[in-house]
Amino acid sequence: MTDTRKTGIGKIAITLAVSDNREVKFIEEYQKKGYSLVKGGVGSMNAGKIFAAIETAVFRQDIIRENYHEEHALYHAISEAFSGYCRGPVALESVLRTTGLVFTVVRGNLSVDDKKNGEWIAVVLYGFIGSPRKGFEHEAIGMGIQSI
Amino acid sequence: MTDTRKTGIGKIAITLAVSDNREVKFIEEYQKKGYSLVKGGVGSMNAGKIFAAIETAVFRQDIIRENYHEEHALYHAISEAFSGYCRGPVALESVLRTTGLVFTVVRGNLSVDDKKNGEWIAVVLYGFIGSPRKGFEHEAIGMGIQSI
Amino acid sequence: MTDTRKTGIGKIAITLAVSDNREVKFIEEYQKKGYSLVKGGVGSMNAGKIFAAIETAVFRQDIIRENYHEEHALYHAISEAFSGYCRGPVALESVLRTTGLVFTVVRGNLSVDDKKNGEWIAVVLYGFIGSPRKGFEHEAIGMGIQSI
Amino acid sequence: MTDTRKTGIGKIAITLAVSDNREVKFIEEYQKKGYSLVKGGVGSMNAGKIFAAIETAVFRQDIIRENYHEEHALYHAISEAFSGYCRGPVALESVLRTTGLVFTVVRGNLSVDDKKNGEWIAVVLYGFIGSPRKGFEHEAIGMGIQSI
Amino acid sequence: MTDTRKTGIGKIAITLAVSDNREVKFIEEYQKKGYSLVKGGVGSMNAGKIFAAIETAVFRQDIIRENYHEEHALYHAISEAFSGYCRGPVALESVLRTTGLVFTVVRGNLSVDDKKNGEWIAVVLYGFIGSPRKGFEHEAIGMGIQSI
Amino acid sequence: MTDTRKTGIGKIAITLAVSDNREVKFIEEYQKKGYSLVKGGVGSMNAGKIFAAIETAVFRQDIIRENYHEEHALYHAISEAFSGYCRGPVALESVLRTTGLVFTVVRGNLSVDDKKNGEWIAVVLYGFIGSPRKGFEHEAIGMGIQSI
Repeated sequence: MTDTRKTGIGKIAITLAVSDNREVKFIEEYQKKGYSLVKGGVGSMNAGKIFAAIETAVFRQDIIRENYHEEHALYHAISEAFSGYCRGPVALESVLRTTGLVFTVVRGNLSVDDKKNGEWIAVVLYGFIGSPRKGFEHEAIGMGIQSI
Repeated sequence: MTDTRKTGIGKIAITLAVSDNREVKFIEEYQKKGYSLVKGGVGSMNAGKIFAAIETAVFRQDIIRENYHEEHALYHAISEAFSGYCRGPVALESVLRTTGLVFTVVRGNLSVDDKKNGEWIAVVLYGFIGSPRKGFEHEAIGMGIQSI
Repeated sequence: MTDTRKTGIGKIAITLAVSDNREVKFIEEYQKKGYSLVKGGVGSMNAGKIFAAIETAVFRQDIIRENYHEEHALYHAISEAFSGYCRGPVALESVLRTTGLVFTVVRGNLSVDDKKNGEWIAVVLYGFIGSPRKGFEHEAIGMGIQSI
Repeated sequence: MTDTRKTGIGKIAITLAVSDNREVKFIEEYQKKGYSLVKGGVGSMNAGKIFAAIETAVFRQDIIRENYHEEHALYHAISEAFSGYCRGPVALESVLRTTGLVFTVVRGNLSVDDKKNGEWIAVVLYGFIGSPRKGFEHEAIGMGIQSI
Repeated sequence: MTDTRKTGIGKIAITLAVSDNREVKFIEEYQKKGYSLVKGGVGSMNAGKIFAAIETAVFRQDIIRENYHEEHALYHAISEAFSGYCRGPVALESVLRTTGLVFTVVRGNLSVDDKKNGEWIAVVLYGFIGSPRKGFEHEAIGMGIQSI
Repeated sequence: MTDTRKTGIGKIAITLAVSDNREVKFIEEYQKKGYSLVKGGVGSMNAGKIFAAIETAVFRQDIIRENYHEEHALYHAISEAFSGYCRGPVALESVLRTTGLVFTVVRGNLSVDDKKNGEWIAVVLYGFIGSPRKGFEHEAIGMGIQSI
């Protein structure tokens, strides 16, 4: 079995998503190792707004270049992350649920010690999903990883 | 937007899944707060074996009682976690991929400071998924949470 | 093979959904056996409205308590019933179809003679689904059952 | 909203599936109204065997003609019924669950009083689905209707 | 293995969809062989509008009769084609993507030399799908075939 | 709406898949324009074998380099193509169907006149899918396109 203890790009993105403090320090630590990282937040019943918020943050931070080749990889990573976050119908409003979440996007090698497989992008969504009624919600997580 | 900084049952299960050391201490810390926790590992192209490995570990550690009411909640949590882990077709061998993963199961309140919403169970799968060829794989994560 | 002739909570909910008369008597008969039952109707191209109509009817009839633990079980039962009703994309308006349906919700034991597996909730949707054009529709059914 | 009280082909198939006795009489009653009906049972972890058992019963009872035009409609009706029965991943063994079910197949008009929309075929699956462990299972239902 | 070189109804619909000129001649050629054919175009973020545009074109060209039996076969063929076109979540706007496409609908025998399996309908969608941003899109294709 | 008349990488792969002769000439024509192309065939009830046959053909023809970065893009393109080919449950044997198909893989620019969006890979599956019974089958097509 693969060693799940090594520091992969996914673990970096997950850890940043669930961390509650010292995020600036965490980001700096991995920037020194060659990664680009961004963390943001968005809440909506409208799934399209979640996709848009992540794309906007990623372009604003220059995590990816503004061409279709790279945007396509980002889109697929977001789409997979959102699909995993939803665990079933890939939908919010139409199945009467809403979400508030933080997202992290990390670009770099597949793992800290991997140099031969090129660059990748990982997107993690972590937050609360539930009925549009205060407190009627539980946590969810989703992650998508694409070569870029 | 919901505060993603509070310590929810999902965050406990995710953190235990991606942590590389001091797991015993982490488990003890949350046992003191009323949670039951288990961490294990399994690798297979056969998704059914992953379900079975988790159920076996959970029963062996007495995380749930051996009745159908509780087993059903566990099954749904595993099923949602696996669906999120797969991000698309809920399948391994039939789409020519395999996985090695760690799983964590946590039972207790929705969050450390929540007492009014009863007991829940969270299942997290974290590992590597890819072609049945050494090194051709990347990370994935999935989580399911059910009332129990 | 399991005996499909015993009176399970699902069969109670299905029978109530497709029955055309004597529903009051049927409901009273099963209330005496410890079940809570509700039947209602809703028509919409908007799936969210169907979820909302069921939740409202259930709360109004005190079938479940107004906490998240029970609402979560109800939500999952509705979501599974709707997924089965749709048989493919879990969507109405976005794939140009509409529906008029009756729903039944039953709470109680898994079957009339089962006492050891705790309480469950069954949701059945039965109705007509089709193009937004009079008479261009056929029947559909879906059921979700959750431990509560 | 459509009147769910009329006797549609789906309601005939559902009623036959959940009825516990007098099935012969029920079948005769609807044969007089121009319908062809069959009821059978099958149990398996292997979904393909369920498809095969239904096709075999239908051909043996001459419900459909042995050409691809009619077999295709039957296949789609079975596939939709099974998809609705599964309510999520369309799978049994690979998500560690098994089922024992009865199936009904009805061929005829969309409803008893409809003469202008040609012939249709309805397939209903009703039974118990759950872990491969005695008693750890609950009911499920699925229905597919196709023009033939 | 089946001979993929014979001229099936699907291949006729695909070829018409991707052909850039001489479409009138192509349509006439297959009309002489007993097929009905239509080609049209539509662009939208709203999937329902795509379904509606195809149904309208088909009725206007008298490819199918205006009864539910035939409309149901058409609907299923469109739905399968759109599902194949989307390759994952059957959605456009809600996953922040849009499309511009051509559609073809062909009605007739399963293949030019098949006379014994009755009439069928094939729907092909071919076009570009992507972010709502000029040039950020790639091609997609989907096809549904139903007996009619 | 996007002009569906330009020669995209998808149209190249589709045209090669449905062409019945002069394939060698077609391949040479697009090789001169900078594309790599391969066409092959496979028949199976086992979806994994279809994935494997395509990967083998692609590596044998040096369409992609043998590293995970490129293999991952190929895998996703195959997976999307197969998902579109299946139009619903991404499964063959478990829903009692089999297929015989040709596949084409094309690597190069998004369209003949596009130079600014880097390299992409398109996978097309075209063939016959149906019951495991001679002649009980119809055509299907699926395509996946990924940046590489």
